[in-house]
Amino acid sequence: MKKMLLIAGLLCTMLISAQVRPDPQPAPDSFEQFNLGMAGYTFVNFDLDKTLEIMDKCDVKYLCIKDFHLPLKSTDEEIAAFHAKLKTKGVTGYAVGPIYMRSRDEVDNAFEYAKRVGVKLIVGVPNYELLPYVDLKVKEYDFQYAIHLHGPDMPLYPDADDVWNNVKDLDGRIGMCLDVGHDTRNGKDPVKDLEKYHSRVFDIHIKDVTGSTKAGYSVEIGRGIIDFPAFIDMLRKVDYSGVCSLEHERNMKDPFLGIAESIGYFRGMIAATKEVKK
Amino acid sequence: MKKMLLIAGLLCTMLISAQVRPDPQPAPDSFEQFNLGMAGYTFVNFDLDKTLEIMDKCDVKYLCIKDFHLPLKSTDEEIAAFHAKLKTKGVTGYAVGPIYMRSRDEVDNAFEYAKRVGVKLIVGVPNYELLPYVDLKVKEYDFQYAIHLHGPDMPLYPDADDVWNNVKDLDGRIGMCLDVGHDTRNGKDPVKDLEKYHSRVFDIHIKDVTGSTKAGYSVEIGRGIIDFPAFIDMLRKVDYSGVCSLEHERNMKDPFLGIAESIGYFRGMIAATKEVKK
Repeated sequence: MKKMLLIAGLLCTMLISAQVRPDPQPAPDSFEQFNLGMAGYTFVNFDLDKTLEIMDKCDVKYLCIKDFHLPLKSTDEEIAAFHAKLKTKGVTGYAVGPIYMRSRDEVDNAFEYAKRVGVKLIVGVPNYELLPYVDLKVKEYDFQYAIHLHGPDMPLYPDADDVWNNVKDLDGRIGMCLDVGHDTRNGKDPVKDLEKYHSRVFDIHIKDVTGSTKAGYSVEIGRGIIDFPAFIDMLRKVDYSGVCSLEHERNMKDPFLGIAESIGYFRGMIAATKEVKK
Repeated sequence: MKKMLLIAGLLCTMLISAQVRPDPQPAPDSFEQFNLGMAGYTFVNFDLDKTLEIMDKCDVKYLCIKDFHLPLKSTDEEIAAFHAKLKTKGVTGYAVGPIYMRSRDEVDNAFEYAKRVGVKLIVGVPNYELLPYVDLKVKEYDFQYAIHLHGPDMPLYPDADDVWNNVKDLDGRIGMCLDVGHDTRNGKDPVKDLEKYHSRVFDIHIKDVTGSTKAGYSVEIGRGIIDFPAFIDMLRKVDYSGVCSLEHERNMKDPFLGIAESIGYFRGMIAATKEVKK
């Protein structure tokens, strides 16, 4: 009986010690040219601390900065503190936006903000009539300007065709943030659009949606209709070297499990298609 | 100005209404013979309500029942209430265990418990000398008995080879719960072991691990060394028709994001490898 108790005790010790493990274990390098990131809008209901906690748990290292986490009127000190906080989790703020621009002043403010933040990519939604002015600004600042397309919900830039038609004769640094969900909801195929327009695709929002019309709504990646394996193949084919940022627009008051599931799904697809290609 | 305010108001309305979406959106049918499930042990620190909440969010419908959620001495009324609660989330308790069995009495109790719970699969860890008695019991009850292998941490059943060697001459209803993580930590290849032993693989625990020795520890699926795309291919090749249950053994006090990431990763791999095969 004593021996059994001893064995039971040893087992317990082993089980308990098995719980003490190094943390975190990062996701392995995907060896892709593109990176996985997070669109700040995913955390519209949460502060920067929570945002970084979730990004850390999901091991996501690129953030597109939204103004509710870093207001446009932030001082240089506030911007420095923001970057320092990101750095504690190994996160890079790679762009700002989406920023809506309805006047020349708002365009001016956005470019100055991006410059002070230290990024060279703005995700923006300029009124159409401001495009010639944006054209001047990208030349002046040497920034890339990615117009965020927003499907059938808004009159501005419903899909990739619309962005392309509006920017194709402008400076090559004006292009799009290809939101695969909204493009799909406007009846378009984001795989084909990435192929057609990749020379002007500077940022990508990943998400899944349930349908190819306005009634389609955002869900966890893998639960909707978007052909992500084909999209990942196309990312490789066109040598996309920007960020694929998850803009998770589901259960936005309690989005965390959906975020993790989506990130896992996307990484699983990358790994599995790589494997098959071996 | 009035017109602008009106447009702004309309935009706000649209944005707000866009948040009202049906819930939940289930994961699509994988059209695989195997199902995705959850090992109850994943929730060792949580009650059944929390377990079902997380399973619901991840859309996982099969649970291997652990005794801390449904004790072996539960009354028939308690068992009925347990099943009723699972049913509210569309969850099926498909098996019980792992249950350690160190005496004939404990074997008897486990079989009676499984019978009262209404499942025909027991995940068990019997002392080696009890195997002939288990052999009698599976004949008596016509149950499947899946021995859980546990790597180098415990003297009992370190890997698939050990289970196989101990059961191959017994009734065909005695086999294994292939824990891919622990098998790997004992230096074995779970892909090859599934191929070799599939006729006796009645349950599978999925998880990832960081190394092929005892020092390897459990991580989110995709962050370790297990070749899951090859494992999924093997599941298809051997026509595995049981459950792959996530036994998530990382950050067990706060495992939720890791669970969701692992489930997403596994589903993403299934979808992506299917796609490539088209």
